[in-house]
Amino acid sequence: MTALFDRVALIGVGLIGSSLSHAMRAHGLAVHVSAHARSAATRSKVKDLGLAHSVHDSAAAAVVDADLVILCSPVGSYGALAAEIAPALKPGAILTDVGSVKAAVAKDIGPHVPAGVHFIPGHPIAGTEQSGPESGFATLFANRWCILTPLPGCDPVALAKLETFWRRCGSDVEVMTPEHHDLVLAITSHLPHLIAYNIVATAADLEEVTSSEVIKYSAGGFRDFTRIAASDPTMWRDVFLNNREAVLEMLGRFTEDLSALQRAIRWGDGETLFTLFSRSREIRRGIIAAGQDTAAPNFGRNPEKSQ
Amino acid sequence: MTALFDRVALIGVGLIGSSLSHAMRAHGLAVHVSAHARSAATRSKVKDLGLAHSVHDSAAAAVVDADLVILCSPVGSYGALAAEIAPALKPGAILTDVGSVKAAVAKDIGPHVPAGVHFIPGHPIAGTEQSGPESGFATLFANRWCILTPLPGCDPVALAKLETFWRRCGSDVEVMTPEHHDLVLAITSHLPHLIAYNIVATAADLEEVTSSEVIKYSAGGFRDFTRIAASDPTMWRDVFLNNREAVLEMLGRFTEDLSALQRAIRWGDGETLFTLFSRSREIRRGIIAAGQDTAAPNFGRNPEKSQ
Repeated sequence: MTALFDRVALIGVGLIGSSLSHAMRAHGLAVHVSAHARSAATRSKVKDLGLAHSVHDSAAAAVVDADLVILCSPVGSYGALAAEIAPALKPGAILTDVGSVKAAVAKDIGPHVPAGVHFIPGHPIAGTEQSGPESGFATLFANRWCILTPLPGCDPVALAKLETFWRRCGSDVEVMTPEHHDLVLAITSHLPHLIAYNIVATAADLEEVTSSEVIKYSAGGFRDFTRIAASDPTMWRDVFLNNREAVLEMLGRFTEDLSALQRAIRWGDGETLFTLFSRSREIRRGIIAAGQDTAAPNFGRNPEKSQ
Repeated sequence: MTALFDRVALIGVGLIGSSLSHAMRAHGLAVHVSAHARSAATRSKVKDLGLAHSVHDSAAAAVVDADLVILCSPVGSYGALAAEIAPALKPGAILTDVGSVKAAVAKDIGPHVPAGVHFIPGHPIAGTEQSGPESGFATLFANRWCILTPLPGCDPVALAKLETFWRRCGSDVEVMTPEHHDLVLAITSHLPHLIAYNIVATAADLEEVTSSEVIKYSAGGFRDFTRIAASDPTMWRDVFLNNREAVLEMLGRFTEDLSALQRAIRWGDGETLFTLFSRSREIRRGIIAAGQDTAAPNFGRNPEKSQ
């Protein structure tokens, strides 16, 4: 099978960039992978781990002659990066990204994109709580969705080629507008992270309960929240700064619902609690049926009990 | 090794009761296990699964001659159960429970306990999102903490024997007051469950985002919350009805902290967000170091990436 692209440039090599490198190698998607990372330490790790054929100090140098350029750094860096690489982009190249917000990204990158370059924002809904070039693995995208948010006038051939790229990485692909993406992800990803970060902070600040008690008895539920609250702080700061309206909207609804629950607890309204608690199992079953989570109890933490 | 107890009675055989049955068999802790379950369907399953040597229609019949009686039903049932079994309890027997709240349980059961019976409330911090007699397994309690909350005047010999029982089930044991237990669990277990139930309800009620989209893109973080929100609704209703003050106190702090985060997002205060997000990794590391969670990314959902 011939490679899908002659040359792919990864700008930023953290969890997603390094996983893309592994996936491209596993599926023969690129003849040459060039990479840029901002810090010398990361560039050195990228070399040591063999994640790219060429590693570049500057982003502009990394994108020269690339047929596909993927921005894999925190979304707050995209505007400046786009300005820097624009003059070096090859006509006909596809420029995409993996950022967790899409309307702000389209606005930050769009104006810099030269005519003849196909800019198609993207977002693979895949990740772990780990970060850095050593955290990636080839199957991160397998059976996960990748959302592409092409802008008006997007070249259908370039879009189809980028879809093929993600499918060959193991993903399913969905196309929607940047605005709808941001609303969907606000509830399925951004609000969950915000709440997880918040409860960990609340727990850390208690006087009556020590941190060591919080840690010891975390198997009661708290430990699940600490996993996603261990995600990369820079990435998540940028998500909240760049999807403000949708996050505030979802947060408002969440808080409203939480007030109703609080009232039910205060007034001892067991029926309201029971009815609400009974609704959740259906969504959980849907997620498992859709192949988006394991059916094993405790996420499979108890391997001896696998059903 | 001789069995620790001649006869142990399980009152209620769900996830915890059935896991205790498996653990007792695995570690030779009882010569005879008697069981009572309220519904005929559950009693039939208990027989089919071989979870007890004798299965009884009435709780009082199940506790006759038992040296250890363990209440394993939702905490809302304890008061009536205690009244029913009290006349049948053997002098010198230990009566305990596995409920997720302790002050209310001590208050509900305490007045019914006959002189000569040793009542010691308990709570194993272990579970999965599954329920019912078929969901149990012998290692559920391994490396998890079991909290005992003996009341003033508790017999130290009985307490030591119950501690031994839990240690032989694989648990570590900690002793504290019922009130402190309720405060600790409010933050490590009750509030996480409340928040998880709430966000699942918020997501289910959206108009702009469909349930099918919530399910498809749940790998962005939401799916983690659906696991604990799939827990038994009756059990959790009773927890919130019986630990009201501590839960409302923790919820008040959580909401206060969330308002501060909301404000930081609204005002674009990236520094506040970054500082807060950076604090969480340490608690996560503590939980992993304490053996209370797996270090594998995504809770080990990606077995090919185990470090």
